[in-house]
Amino acid sequence: MVKVGILTIGNELTSGRIQDTNSALIARAMQEQGWPVAAMLSVGDDDGAIHEALDFLLARAEAVIATGGLGPTADDITTAAIAGAFGLSLRMDESVLAHVRDLFAKRRLPWTENNAKQALFPEGAEVIANPTGTAAGFAVRREGKIVAVIPGVPAEAKRMLPEGVIPLFRREFPEAALHVETATFKLFGIPEAAVDAAMADADLAALGVAIGFYPNLPENHIVLTARTASAEEAAAKLREAGARVKERLGKHIFAHGQETLEGNVARMLTDWGLTLAVAESCTGGLITDRLTDIPGSSLFLERGLVTYSNAAKIALLGVPEEVIAAHGAVSAETARLMAEGVRRLAGTHLGLAVTGIAGPTGGTEAKPVGTVHVALADGETTLFRHHALRWDRRRNKIAAAQIALLMLWRYLSGEVGDGG
Amino acid sequence: MVKVGILTIGNELTSGRIQDTNSALIARAMQEQGWPVAAMLSVGDDDGAIHEALDFLLARAEAVIATGGLGPTADDITTAAIAGAFGLSLRMDESVLAHVRDLFAKRRLPWTENNAKQALFPEGAEVIANPTGTAAGFAVRREGKIVAVIPGVPAEAKRMLPEGVIPLFRREFPEAALHVETATFKLFGIPEAAVDAAMADADLAALGVAIGFYPNLPENHIVLTARTASAEEAAAKLREAGARVKERLGKHIFAHGQETLEGNVARMLTDWGLTLAVAESCTGGLITDRLTDIPGSSLFLERGLVTYSNAAKIALLGVPEEVIAAHGAVSAETARLMAEGVRRLAGTHLGLAVTGIAGPTGGTEAKPVGTVHVALADGETTLFRHHALRWDRRRNKIAAAQIALLMLWRYLSGEVGDGG
Repeated sequence: MVKVGILTIGNELTSGRIQDTNSALIARAMQEQGWPVAAMLSVGDDDGAIHEALDFLLARAEAVIATGGLGPTADDITTAAIAGAFGLSLRMDESVLAHVRDLFAKRRLPWTENNAKQALFPEGAEVIANPTGTAAGFAVRREGKIVAVIPGVPAEAKRMLPEGVIPLFRREFPEAALHVETATFKLFGIPEAAVDAAMADADLAALGVAIGFYPNLPENHIVLTARTASAEEAAAKLREAGARVKERLGKHIFAHGQETLEGNVARMLTDWGLTLAVAESCTGGLITDRLTDIPGSSLFLERGLVTYSNAAKIALLGVPEEVIAAHGAVSAETARLMAEGVRRLAGTHLGLAVTGIAGPTGGTEAKPVGTVHVALADGETTLFRHHALRWDRRRNKIAAAQIALLMLWRYLSGEVGDGG
Repeated sequence: MVKVGILTIGNELTSGRIQDTNSALIARAMQEQGWPVAAMLSVGDDDGAIHEALDFLLARAEAVIATGGLGPTADDITTAAIAGAFGLSLRMDESVLAHVRDLFAKRRLPWTENNAKQALFPEGAEVIANPTGTAAGFAVRREGKIVAVIPGVPAEAKRMLPEGVIPLFRREFPEAALHVETATFKLFGIPEAAVDAAMADADLAALGVAIGFYPNLPENHIVLTARTASAEEAAAKLREAGARVKERLGKHIFAHGQETLEGNVARMLTDWGLTLAVAESCTGGLITDRLTDIPGSSLFLERGLVTYSNAAKIALLGVPEEVIAAHGAVSAETARLMAEGVRRLAGTHLGLAVTGIAGPTGGTEAKPVGTVHVALADGETTLFRHHALRWDRRRNKIAAAQIALLMLWRYLSGEVGDGG
């Protein structure tokens, strides 16, 4: 079993100026490979601290991944500190230097001599290419152990980890280099503890498939990982494990892998040439904000209306004043008429509506904070549901938007019959 | 100088299941106190790892703050591990036990005996109260050094740090207990490097005021910290330093301390009894999403319209078809007519509008991706501005929403004359 240590370097971390996201990113990638993380350590841009941190981690792990401090400025000392800790001198890599100069020329940035620093590596180091930035990474070895260093810029680390570091570690520790396959299931409407309980009898451990639970408000994600000698075996195990997940939690799964709820909704609307209009009250525009994060959403989204006032519900959606007077702005009747009204007035195939009380004030005994009504109209039938949320204002908005998008997703998936 | 070590404990951290936010929270609080952080370490729920981590940190720091592993379940072993590392036995604190039982009764939760574990502390430990949860913290001392332990739940840690841990450390190290005052300035429209350059000649160091830069997309925050013997002196230094910040960067500052842009806009609209209608294209509802995060926004927000299609711009905002045909949907003319139209049709005092190209497609040579037009109409004049953003779709949306809210804030602040 290869144990890994993670070292993130930078004064911006130890001063709390920046939230370190690289440690969690790397830890999760190691977890997928089946390589336990012994410890995660952050220190400032300080030669002695980097040296001591390396010693601590190398005493507890076979491999260390370090990030940060590879830039051109004076406070970027990681390369020199690691070379010093290993008793190595620095040498200039001419091909990396040419690459950095080339990037500057292409981006029409003025060249300053301190950028040459990014082509300096400890002697004997293996260069790890940086496809998107100027600071290459490197790896050095000592007594059967390896230290890989990549930049601290999250977007660069995120790419160099799977493309550079993991393949390197797999070559370095072939006995630990099992074939790894993962499958992600995204769920909504079920708390983490219930997901855990539902999977308790699935016995994935006996199958040799690891299961991880990742809360991701308002969603819960399940990641299955199979580590085996062959790709075929891993795929077969994952298929079986995935079937057991679907059997137990299928009705809560709305997306797989890199898919998102709004992305899946957008794809189905686009594929089928359907148009959508949205009427929001308590979600305040969050539904259309999510939908318009998808490139090409103008193909299906005709309009979104944030009808915060009763006057706007009446004028823009055609909700009769007497319905609001009789049932209130937050009611199944109003939600239904909002969905039907926005659809009719926009001339779209579908109309989606939400009305509710996000809080912290505005609740009553009959309609407490967190009351949410969602409705979806297609010109023939109108689906509607009622929910009682229990969070603060922002999280009530997030959950209400999710509920509405989920109703739309279920409709588009042909799951109308299950009650929305 | 008191040096601090930070230890976060939990398998959910070393597996990458959860992003550790406590380390950065604690590091920033220590930075404000003027206590440097020697190292930040995360280990799993493992007795040996906790012991070794404590040794590493106590060799480099006078004080350690540890979080996590204080709950009732079997994998919560932090208290026992730290007692073991210090050679202390555990004792039951009857008053904490009574408090935990009381919380269960109040919340009508069934009592299970494992919860009594949360009233066990190393002998001689000082209890740190948890005002919002069941797991109290504690502090133990060894050879002039101190280890404070608080729960890993971020909301609980966030409160127990200033209320429990910092006062304790200030008593423990009175020589390090200077009076600390901070002032936060929130800026937009200026990159971090330019903020840094603008402050270069302000010479805050000579004044004894530290300056920190915290990027917070799309904003940049400046935090000034004065550490002195008296509150009066700290306040005087901060006033002087704040004046130097305002002198150099005043036009970029839109909020102070805990204020937010949308919160300040909402406060001014509410105070002055002004109503608002919003017409969004490329921001897709993000502006009204932010405004409706403020409780009571229904007092001023009459409606928001996401007019993604030209038909919606024509039907809902009264933008003449020929204007769109002549100038395009993304143009100063259309933005102006959107703002005026939404104001007129909603019958509000103000109308705010955005139209632009978020990307990644849809750009042309004349109107590249990132082109954004914002306009604000009050019935007499209409302000409008044009921006060229250079990010990806999501960040272009975030920046465009910020630009629009900033135009509104400047108008409400009476800064109309400066060109918006």
